[in-house]
Amino acid sequence: MKTKIEFTHAPIVVPQQQLPDKETGAVLEFSGIVRELENGKKIPGLFYEAHEPMAQKELEKIFRELGAKYPCEDILFIHRLGFVPVGEASLLVRINAGHRQPALAFMTELIDRLKQDVPVWKNPQTC
Amino acid sequence: MKTKIEFTHAPIVVPQQQLPDKETGAVLEFSGIVRELENGKKIPGLFYEAHEPMAQKELEKIFRELGAKYPCEDILFIHRLGFVPVGEASLLVRINAGHRQPALAFMTELIDRLKQDVPVWKNPQTC
Repeated sequence: MKTKIEFTHAPIVVPQQQLPDKETGAVLEFSGIVRELENGKKIPGLFYEAHEPMAQKELEKIFRELGAKYPCEDILFIHRLGFVPVGEASLLVRINAGHRQPALAFMTELIDRLKQDVPVWKNPQTC
Repeated sequence: MKTKIEFTHAPIVVPQQQLPDKETGAVLEFSGIVRELENGKKIPGLFYEAHEPMAQKELEKIFRELGAKYPCEDILFIHRLGFVPVGEASLLVRINAGHRQPALAFMTELIDRLKQDVPVWKNPQTC
Protein backbone atom coordinates (compact mmCIF):
# COMPACT_ATOMS: atom_id res chain seq x y z
CA MET A 1 0.00 0.00 0.00
CA LYS A 2 1.38 3.39 -1.03
CA THR A 3 0.69 6.25 1.38
CA LYS A 4 1.37 9.97 1.32
CA ILE A 5 0.85 12.27 4.30
CA GLU A 6 1.09 16.03 3.95
CA PHE A 7 0.50 18.96 6.31
CA THR A 8 0.18 22.34 4.65
CA HIS A 9 -0.52 25.92 5.68
CA ALA A 10 -1.85 26.74 2.20
CA PRO A 11 -5.33 26.03 0.84
CA ILE A 12 -5.66 22.39 -0.17
CA VAL A 13 -5.49 21.90 -3.91
CA VAL A 14 -7.04 18.58 -4.88
CA PRO A 15 -4.32 16.89 -6.90
CA GLN A 16 -5.26 15.45 -10.26
CA GLN A 17 -6.01 11.75 -9.98
CA GLN A 18 -3.15 9.84 -11.54
CA LEU A 19 -4.25 7.12 -13.93
CA PRO A 20 -5.52 4.35 -11.67
CA ASP A 21 -3.87 0.95 -11.60
CA LYS A 22 -5.59 -1.69 -13.75
CA GLU A 23 -6.84 -3.37 -10.59
CA THR A 24 -8.28 -0.17 -9.11
CA GLY A 25 -12.04 -0.51 -8.97
CA ALA A 26 -12.83 2.28 -6.51
CA VAL A 27 -11.58 5.80 -5.91
CA LEU A 28 -13.04 7.46 -2.82
CA GLU A 29 -12.32 11.06 -1.92
CA PHE A 30 -13.37 12.88 1.24
CA SER A 31 -13.09 16.59 1.94
CA GLY A 32 -13.76 17.93 5.42
CA ILE A 33 -15.01 21.51 5.14
CA VAL A 34 -15.14 24.17 7.88
CA ARG A 35 -18.80 24.96 8.70
CA GLU A 36 -20.15 28.35 9.69
CA LEU A 37 -21.72 27.22 12.96
CA GLU A 38 -19.54 25.81 15.75
CA ASN A 39 -21.57 24.84 18.82
CA GLY A 40 -24.39 27.08 17.62
CA LYS A 41 -22.19 30.16 17.17
CA LYS A 42 -21.20 31.76 13.86
CA ILE A 43 -17.46 31.66 13.30
CA PRO A 44 -15.26 33.01 10.48
CA GLY A 45 -13.17 29.85 10.52
CA LEU A 46 -11.18 27.38 12.57
CA PHE A 47 -7.56 27.46 13.58
CA TYR A 48 -5.78 24.08 13.30
CA GLU A 49 -2.58 23.08 15.03
CA ALA A 50 -0.71 19.78 14.98
CA HIS A 51 2.29 18.12 16.48
CA GLU A 52 3.46 17.14 13.01
CA PRO A 53 6.07 14.42 13.73
CA MET A 54 3.75 12.69 16.23
CA ALA A 55 0.74 13.10 13.94
CA GLN A 56 2.70 11.62 11.03
CA LYS A 57 3.81 8.64 13.13
CA GLU A 58 0.32 8.01 14.50
CA LEU A 59 -1.21 8.24 11.01
CA GLU A 60 1.31 5.73 9.63
CA LYS A 61 0.36 3.34 12.46
CA ILE A 62 -3.36 3.80 11.73
CA PHE A 63 -2.77 3.25 8.00
CA ARG A 64 -0.92 -0.01 8.73
CA GLU A 65 -3.68 -1.28 11.03
CA LEU A 66 -6.50 -0.33 8.67
CA GLY A 67 -4.64 -1.59 5.60
CA ALA A 68 -4.38 -5.04 7.20
CA LYS A 69 -8.16 -5.15 7.68
CA TYR A 70 -9.23 -3.31 4.53
CA PRO A 71 -6.83 -3.82 1.62
CA CYS A 72 -6.33 -0.58 -0.30
CA GLU A 73 -3.72 0.41 -2.87
CA ASP A 74 -3.08 4.05 -2.35
CA ILE A 75 -3.84 6.60 0.39
CA LEU A 76 -3.36 10.33 0.00
CA PHE A 77 -3.87 12.36 3.20
CA ILE A 78 -3.58 16.17 3.27
CA HIS A 79 -4.37 18.23 6.39
CA ARG A 80 -4.36 22.00 6.35
CA LEU A 81 -3.02 23.83 9.42
CA GLY A 82 -3.34 27.41 10.61
CA PHE A 83 -6.47 29.44 9.91
CA VAL A 84 -9.02 27.77 7.64
CA PRO A 85 -11.98 29.98 6.68
CA VAL A 86 -15.58 28.75 6.56
CA GLY A 87 -16.29 26.91 3.31
CA GLU A 88 -12.70 25.74 2.79
CA ALA A 89 -11.29 22.25 3.31
CA SER A 90 -9.21 21.39 6.34
CA LEU A 91 -8.79 17.78 5.26
CA LEU A 92 -8.58 15.76 2.06
CA VAL A 93 -8.29 11.98 1.95
CA ARG A 94 -8.23 10.01 -1.29
CA ILE A 95 -8.23 6.21 -1.32
CA ASN A 96 -7.71 3.94 -4.34
CA ALA A 97 -8.73 0.34 -3.82
CA GLY A 98 -9.68 -2.76 -5.75
CA HIS A 99 -13.19 -2.69 -4.32
CA ARG A 100 -15.55 -0.18 -2.79
CA GLN A 101 -16.14 -1.96 0.55
CA PRO A 102 -12.56 -1.71 1.90
CA ALA A 103 -12.27 1.88 0.63
CA LEU A 104 -15.45 2.92 2.45
CA ALA A 105 -14.53 1.04 5.65
CA PHE A 106 -10.96 2.44 5.60
CA MET A 107 -12.24 5.99 5.15
CA THR A 108 -14.86 5.68 7.90
CA GLU A 109 -12.43 4.34 10.51
CA LEU A 110 -9.58 6.60 9.45
CA ILE A 111 -11.57 9.79 10.08
CA ASP A 112 -12.91 8.47 13.41
CA ARG A 113 -9.37 7.64 14.53
CA LEU A 114 -7.95 10.92 13.23
CA LYS A 115 -10.32 12.75 15.57
CA GLN A 116 -9.62 10.45 18.53
CA ASP A 117 -5.94 9.59 18.33
CA VAL A 118 -3.98 12.01 16.16
CA PRO A 119 -2.47 15.18 17.70
CA VAL A 120 -4.32 17.72 15.55
CA TRP A 121 -6.40 20.32 17.41
CA LYS A 122 -8.91 22.91 16.26
CA ASN A 123 -9.97 26.17 17.87
CA PRO A 124 -12.80 28.38 16.70
CA GLN A 125 -11.97 31.96 15.78
CA THR A 126 -14.70 34.09 17.35
CA CYS A 127 -16.15 36.95 15.28
CA MET B 1 -32.12 17.46 -0.44
CA LYS B 2 -31.11 18.34 -4.01
CA THR B 3 -30.46 15.41 -6.31
CA LYS B 4 -29.24 15.07 -9.89
CA ILE B 5 -29.25 11.81 -11.84
CA GLU B 6 -27.56 11.52 -15.20
CA PHE B 7 -26.94 8.67 -17.63
CA THR B 8 -24.36 9.34 -20.31
CA HIS B 9 -22.71 7.46 -23.15
CA ALA B 10 -19.65 9.74 -22.99
CA PRO B 11 -16.70 9.46 -20.59
CA ILE B 12 -17.62 10.86 -17.17
CA VAL B 13 -16.15 14.30 -16.58
CA VAL B 14 -16.04 15.05 -12.87
CA PRO B 15 -17.86 18.35 -12.62
CA GLN B 16 -16.19 21.15 -10.68
CA GLN B 17 -17.45 21.24 -7.10
CA GLN B 18 -19.70 24.25 -6.72
CA LEU B 19 -18.94 26.33 -3.63
CA PRO B 20 -20.36 24.31 -0.77
CA ASP B 21 -23.17 25.61 1.39
CA LYS B 22 -22.03 27.19 4.68
CA GLU B 23 -23.41 24.19 6.53
CA THR B 24 -21.59 21.65 4.35
CA GLY B 25 -19.00 19.89 6.47
CA ALA B 26 -18.34 16.87 4.26
CA VAL B 27 -17.96 16.26 0.54
CA LEU B 28 -17.61 12.61 -0.41
CA GLU B 29 -16.96 11.46 -3.96
CA PHE B 30 -16.87 7.91 -5.24
CA SER B 31 -15.74 6.73 -8.66
CA GLY B 32 -16.34 3.16 -9.74
CA ILE B 33 -13.64 2.16 -12.22
CA VAL B 34 -13.66 -0.79 -14.66
CA ARG B 35 -10.97 -3.30 -13.65
CA GLU B 36 -8.92 -5.42 -16.00
CA LEU B 37 -9.85 -8.77 -14.48
CA GLU B 38 -13.47 -9.94 -14.50
CA ASN B 39 -13.89 -13.36 -12.86
CA GLY B 40 -10.16 -14.01 -13.36
CA LYS B 41 -10.20 -13.19 -17.10
CA LYS B 42 -8.60 -10.16 -18.75
CA ILE B 43 -11.18 -7.95 -20.43
CA PRO B 44 -10.82 -4.75 -22.49
CA GLY B 45 -13.83 -3.24 -20.74
CA LEU B 46 -17.44 -3.67 -19.72
CA PHE B 47 -20.60 -2.90 -21.62
CA TYR B 48 -23.31 -1.22 -19.52
CA GLU B 49 -27.01 -1.10 -20.31
CA ALA B 50 -29.87 0.42 -18.35
CA HIS B 51 -33.61 0.78 -18.48
CA GLU B 52 -33.22 4.52 -17.96
CA PRO B 53 -36.75 5.58 -16.90
CA MET B 54 -37.03 2.68 -14.43
CA ALA B 55 -33.49 3.22 -13.15
CA GLN B 56 -34.21 6.93 -12.64
CA LYS B 57 -37.41 6.15 -10.71
CA GLU B 58 -35.75 3.49 -8.57
CA LEU B 59 -32.80 5.79 -7.78
CA GLU B 60 -35.17 8.59 -6.73
CA LYS B 61 -36.92 6.15 -4.36
CA ILE B 62 -33.57 4.99 -2.91
CA PHE B 63 -32.45 8.62 -2.47
CA ARG B 64 -35.68 9.44 -0.58
CA GLU B 65 -35.31 6.42 1.70
CA LEU B 66 -31.63 7.00 2.42
CA GLY B 67 -32.10 10.76 2.82
CA ALA B 68 -34.66 10.13 5.58
CA LYS B 69 -32.11 8.01 7.49
CA TYR B 70 -28.94 9.93 6.62
CA PRO B 71 -29.56 13.64 6.08
CA CYS B 72 -27.52 14.95 3.16
CA GLU B 73 -27.77 18.19 1.19
CA ASP B 74 -26.85 17.35 -2.32
CA ILE B 75 -26.44 14.14 -4.34
CA LEU B 76 -24.90 14.01 -7.81
CA PHE B 77 -25.15 10.62 -9.54
CA ILE B 78 -23.67 9.98 -13.00
CA HIS B 79 -23.66 6.51 -14.63
CA ARG B 80 -21.94 5.85 -17.92
CA LEU B 81 -23.61 3.46 -20.38
CA GLY B 82 -22.31 1.63 -23.43
CA PHE B 83 -18.72 0.41 -23.62
CA VAL B 84 -16.48 1.55 -20.76
CA PRO B 85 -12.79 0.62 -21.19
CA VAL B 86 -10.62 -0.69 -18.35
CA GLY B 87 -9.34 2.16 -16.17
CA GLU B 88 -12.29 4.46 -16.87
CA ALA B 89 -15.18 5.30 -14.55
CA SER B 90 -18.60 3.78 -15.02
CA LEU B 91 -20.03 5.58 -11.99
CA LEU B 92 -19.54 8.83 -10.14
CA VAL B 93 -21.42 9.77 -6.98
CA ARG B 94 -20.79 12.98 -5.07
CA ILE B 95 -22.51 13.70 -1.75
CA ASN B 96 -22.45 16.99 0.16
CA ALA B 97 -23.59 16.75 3.77
CA GLY B 98 -23.35 18.57 7.06
CA HIS B 99 -21.41 15.72 8.61
CA ARG B 100 -19.24 12.85 7.47
CA GLN B 101 -21.24 10.00 9.07
CA PRO B 102 -24.46 10.42 7.02
CA ALA B 103 -22.42 10.98 3.85
CA LEU B 104 -20.45 7.74 4.35
CA ALA B 105 -23.55 5.74 5.32
CA PHE B 106 -25.57 7.14 2.38
CA MET B 107 -22.75 6.29 -0.05
CA THR B 108 -22.28 2.76 1.30
CA GLU B 109 -25.98 1.84 1.12
CA LEU B 110 -26.57 3.63 -2.18
CA ILE B 111 -23.94 1.59 -4.04
CA ASP B 112 -25.16 -1.67 -2.46
CA ARG B 113 -28.72 -0.88 -3.53
CA LEU B 114 -27.65 0.29 -6.99
CA LYS B 115 -26.19 -3.17 -7.60
CA GLN B 116 -29.21 -4.99 -6.13
CA ASP B 117 -32.24 -2.98 -7.16
CA VAL B 118 -31.55 -0.66 -10.09
CA PRO B 119 -31.97 -1.91 -13.68
CA VAL B 120 -28.39 -1.34 -14.84
CA TRP B 121 -26.57 -4.38 -16.23
CA LYS B 122 -22.97 -5.01 -17.17
CA ASN B 123 -21.47 -7.50 -19.61
CA PRO B 124 -17.80 -8.18 -20.08
CA GLN B 125 -16.33 -7.67 -23.55
CA THR B 126 -14.13 -10.64 -24.18
CA CYS B 127 -10.72 -10.06 -25.81
